[in-house]
Amino acid sequence: MSALLQRVRKTIQRHALCPPGTRLLVGLSGGSDSVALVLLLRELGEHGGFTVAGLAHLNHRLRASADNDEAFCRAFADRLGCRIVVEGADVKEYASDRGLSTEDAARRIRYDFLERAAGSVGADRIAVGHTQDDQAETFLLKLMRGAGLTGLAGIYPRRGRVVRPLLDVSRGELRDHLREQGEQWVEDETNAGLENPRNRVRHVILPELDSAAGGATRPAIARAAALAREDGEWLDAVACERYLALVETTAEGLAMDVAAAAGEPRAIRRRLLLRALRVGAGGREVSQEHVELAMAVLEGSCGGADVPGGRVERSRGKLVVVQRKVVPK
Amino acid sequence: MSALLQRVRKTIQRHALCPPGTRLLVGLSGGSDSVALVLLLRELGEHGGFTVAGLAHLNHRLRASADNDEAFCRAFADRLGCRIVVEGADVKEYASDRGLSTEDAARRIRYDFLERAAGSVGADRIAVGHTQDDQAETFLLKLMRGAGLTGLAGIYPRRGRVVRPLLDVSRGELRDHLREQGEQWVEDETNAGLENPRNRVRHVILPELDSAAGGATRPAIARAAALAREDGEWLDAVACERYLALVETTAEGLAMDVAAAAGEPRAIRRRLLLRALRVGAGGREVSQEHVELAMAVLEGSCGGADVPGGRVERSRGKLVVVQRKVVPK
Repeated sequence: MSALLQRVRKTIQRHALCPPGTRLLVGLSGGSDSVALVLLLRELGEHGGFTVAGLAHLNHRLRASADNDEAFCRAFADRLGCRIVVEGADVKEYASDRGLSTEDAARRIRYDFLERAAGSVGADRIAVGHTQDDQAETFLLKLMRGAGLTGLAGIYPRRGRVVRPLLDVSRGELRDHLREQGEQWVEDETNAGLENPRNRVRHVILPELDSAAGGATRPAIARAAALAREDGEWLDAVACERYLALVETTAEGLAMDVAAAAGEPRAIRRRLLLRALRVGAGGREVSQEHVELAMAVLEGSCGGADVPGGRVERSRGKLVVVQRKVVPK
Repeated sequence: MSALLQRVRKTIQRHALCPPGTRLLVGLSGGSDSVALVLLLRELGEHGGFTVAGLAHLNHRLRASADNDEAFCRAFADRLGCRIVVEGADVKEYASDRGLSTEDAARRIRYDFLERAAGSVGADRIAVGHTQDDQAETFLLKLMRGAGLTGLAGIYPRRGRVVRPLLDVSRGELRDHLREQGEQWVEDETNAGLENPRNRVRHVILPELDSAAGGATRPAIARAAALAREDGEWLDAVACERYLALVETTAEGLAMDVAAAAGEPRAIRRRLLLRALRVGAGGREVSQEHVELAMAVLEGSCGGADVPGGRVERSRGKLVVVQRKVVPK
């Protein structure tokens, strides 16, 4: 078994991504990462007792070559004798209808499609081709955008049914593997445009970091993301426990005892407040700044503050998250 | 009080850097950060009840302009009527004698000098001029060098007697403040050379991040470092407690119960092992890789591994850190 296969198998084992009997749907864009993912999973499945139940390709219609990509994916699936589910989507329209960035819209449409495709081929897990490169890029993007509490965790090897077996290998290694196998893939032109922040990070900033460090920095950044995730997961679990012990639901919203909350370490206190604000926000985005405001109110350096969906105040020894009354239509 | 003064005061208060009655020694290189630090601390001291007891300048003799820098600092101190302690050091010789990088050698010499200078002026704390810029640069440098467990914490506002009141303000703000006041400073030419990784980060990578993000990224990166520090401090405290409960000292070294250690969350388990390896290493550098090896031994996926100062093994349900016998001369 090649070194690459062994490393992917190790990732799968460490995070229990594909227990024996798992039927996988694999997301296939036609790019090197997803093409390699399909081939590696089929090979590892023979040893690991899991199977690739089908492939799924979403035609974003964002690029001139979108239809060629679809044709490539259909031909690839035929050659492997794999079922493939293909769907088209108008990302631009979806984005403008909902006021989302093209990147966010494409992500939502993709995962929604993958869930449906998994159902249609009877797959219980969905494998996607994120690599160590994506991990490092995402970490830097979140870092420069002001990653909140859990932001630096980067990409998770598993989230619900979605698994990412390639998180510990680089795009370069995957392309070398494909070349050795004489396999083709389609180039994603949209990766070229440097007006897109992710492409700036990929094509300009990471190479600059490499040359400043005198070596590849992606593995180090990906490892930092993994460690931040481990720390964050446990801190969140502790904060969740404390939340259940400290927070009571009242007529006007949520309340927690100021003295008890102030007695928690700051790492936990922040997460307690984040959790309370998220509950109060009812789906609205809660930022690090909102948590800072709530910390200030808790510590008494600020009387009260508006937060998504309501207001944070102190009254009678309690920190109260007052939810704004929804006016009935 | 100016917005800048208020922010520095807030940093001082939040981290209790200068309790009333504190006598400060201020490290003065002659650069904008340390010149601004002296002036801001003298102004804030009047309100805060602390005093600048003296300044300290170390002549690194690394640059042609080193003697001009010393003359500038002496004149600055005279003008303010401040005591100043000046010392010369041969950083290059110190570095080559001990096989250290110039940067590491300069740091050791500087803090050793500052401690002595504090004694000579009867100061109980030492203030140094690290800014939000230094915080962001240090975070990125540690990140790309493969920051270990505690690496991403960045620069601490307080470490022992050393305090850093400028960590929440940028170099640009300090220079604007100095210009408004008609104050001079010396430029540190060594900052210009791009062969130095820190200068690459400062002059190339951070500006690139700013343009990719469409705004200043240093504040976001500095905030991420602060949050990582808060998380890390509490995780380390918990790991320290668990260490005392789980680790016993034996004839050959250290031992901890495998089942008990494996029962700890990974975030704590890593720090337990780091702590044990550091004790066993007796001053030698313990890296993230060594912790990974010890994790593998603990989890049984590896029989034993060499670590700094000794070896990690499993025997009779214990993880043992065996210290290498020191052969008596």
